[in-house]
Amino acid sequence: MATNISQTHLFREIHEQPAVLRRLFIEEWATAQALADLIRERDIDNVIIAARGTSDNAGRYAQYVFGAMNGLSVGLSAPSLFSIYRRPPHMGNSLVLGISQSGQSPDIVGVLAEARRQGALTAVLTNRPASPLAEQGDVVIALHAEEERAVAATKTYTAELGAVALISAALSGAAEDRAALLALPDAVETTLSMNRAVAGAAERYRYMTRCVTAGRGFNYATAFETALKLKEMTYTIVEPYSPADFLHGPLAMIEPGFPVIVIGTTGAVADDMANFARTLRERQAELIAISDTAALLEMARIPLALPVTVPEWLSPMTAIIPGQLLAMHLANVRDYNIDSPRAIHKVTETV
Amino acid sequence: MATNISQTHLFREIHEQPAVLRRLFIEEWATAQALADLIRERDIDNVIIAARGTSDNAGRYAQYVFGAMNGLSVGLSAPSLFSIYRRPPHMGNSLVLGISQSGQSPDIVGVLAEARRQGALTAVLTNRPASPLAEQGDVVIALHAEEERAVAATKTYTAELGAVALISAALSGAAEDRAALLALPDAVETTLSMNRAVAGAAERYRYMTRCVTAGRGFNYATAFETALKLKEMTYTIVEPYSPADFLHGPLAMIEPGFPVIVIGTTGAVADDMANFARTLRERQAELIAISDTAALLEMARIPLALPVTVPEWLSPMTAIIPGQLLAMHLANVRDYNIDSPRAIHKVTETV
Repeated sequence: MATNISQTHLFREIHEQPAVLRRLFIEEWATAQALADLIRERDIDNVIIAARGTSDNAGRYAQYVFGAMNGLSVGLSAPSLFSIYRRPPHMGNSLVLGISQSGQSPDIVGVLAEARRQGALTAVLTNRPASPLAEQGDVVIALHAEEERAVAATKTYTAELGAVALISAALSGAAEDRAALLALPDAVETTLSMNRAVAGAAERYRYMTRCVTAGRGFNYATAFETALKLKEMTYTIVEPYSPADFLHGPLAMIEPGFPVIVIGTTGAVADDMANFARTLRERQAELIAISDTAALLEMARIPLALPVTVPEWLSPMTAIIPGQLLAMHLANVRDYNIDSPRAIHKVTETV
Repeated sequence: MATNISQTHLFREIHEQPAVLRRLFIEEWATAQALADLIRERDIDNVIIAARGTSDNAGRYAQYVFGAMNGLSVGLSAPSLFSIYRRPPHMGNSLVLGISQSGQSPDIVGVLAEARRQGALTAVLTNRPASPLAEQGDVVIALHAEEERAVAATKTYTAELGAVALISAALSGAAEDRAALLALPDAVETTLSMNRAVAGAAERYRYMTRCVTAGRGFNYATAFETALKLKEMTYTIVEPYSPADFLHGPLAMIEPGFPVIVIGTTGAVADDMANFARTLRERQAELIAISDTAALLEMARIPLALPVTVPEWLSPMTAIIPGQLLAMHLANVRDYNIDSPRAIHKVTETV
């Protein structure tokens, strides 16, 4: 029996995203400014990020935003170097940023505790400002997403991206960056109008067992997060790629009908994504395009048109919406539990 | 019609690996020492790696080896920050290490050229010491793998790992590290005796369309490289994971019979891998174990026993052998072209 989808926590939480971002941008602007001041005062040019799961995808976004917008060098930490091999790297002159919805995962808390011991600047993005992780942050940015009841994270993911973008805008100090950020919640709201189109597309993929997602630059994170939502909720094996990595070997997997979700928005990587889509089309892949560009949408078997164009660095917060909606509708088409996928829990404690 | 597998380039190149490592360790020891001296003289504690495809997996290995053995902080570069966004990070006080069999890929050459412009120490691991990439290296370590004719890289991958291990041993200066390294080619040779067992196991997976590989710490790279060989040669969708990341969501994909290749050798992560295998078994996954530990092998439906135990930091050079052999035999079982998989080429030029 089909679920009434609009009664699920997930549906509501997806639709709360504009409100969460509005709250976050207002409430945390001063804290983001304070963090930016500390980064400048301490002449920090290197960021180390500790995160798992969905939050790790927010870390991927941070790698490009802090890199391309703020000229910082960003690395993703390898928690087992801390927890298992007990050889933490030198982090003294870095910003070490922990990202976690729950603030609970022991491995992430361990990275921040070690960073603090070494005298590094620590910052935490979390929805739980009273968590063990938050205790390790010199600066704590709260996500203001309220309780997330669905196991699959949606509003806390976009809030994590929003917090990263807020820090980036505070660092750049450019009025246009701040203005673009403040206009973003309305763009996310407009993007939610894709719900009907995505619902219409989902049925086609009822029996899809495997799939690839592709994105580059800022939307490399969107490829990963779209893949993760589909894996968690629809139990499909979905592998995320940058087109450049995909062409080094994995292209061999593509046969006629192989489904590929290509994510490309207006900006520096748009041509690259269109060329990649052309290569896939020559191999008769089934293309699903998430894009605001005609070039990419025209090539797709299933075009999912983003209704609004935002600056490329902010586009991961609109471009993830159709991926979240697709995972939800595909889970529904398959009569899976939307709010509580099998085998996983809201808080996962790993070391 | 079945191919005579021992007549393929791939078969020969897999079996050349002990000889390649012996040559490399003798010929490049002095160069690795010279690089170690430069790293110490310049008080470098940060390494940035630029690589794609198979070489990117050698970069993953380097992240753990340089981290756990030498206390260095290692990040993998995001080439599009250089080539597309034109915002290269500050790299002045880093070692920037380019890894590429062919030394041709323009994006990797671009990262090294920018590093050199900024005054960073640059080093290159390549099988082509006369390539454009080698021109950008202050230090060039040649892989001594001779020409690789099969499209799927095998001997150049283990040679890249060997070069990383050589640098690590030169940095540590410990006699036991060097002795362990010099004993490794014999261990790799012994491991090649697995060919018959792996050939016997391959038929079972004739119609496998999707699969997961898992490894942690030093063998996180082995999970990625095993997955890449299977993708390139057998056109199966195979996604590599660290168990810690897998438990944050993707575990939902596992249903009875879902094939998972778990790679775990004697060492610090062995218990963690055995616990992970137990979790998968409870969900009735089909477990293929690549291991020298009884705990892990006993849990597997298909145990692939490594015949020799080596120090954990060197184990990725033995543990990758069954993965290479499995990809080869599975391609053969499927009547695919072993030396020239469809759609891919030996040198891929990406930006």
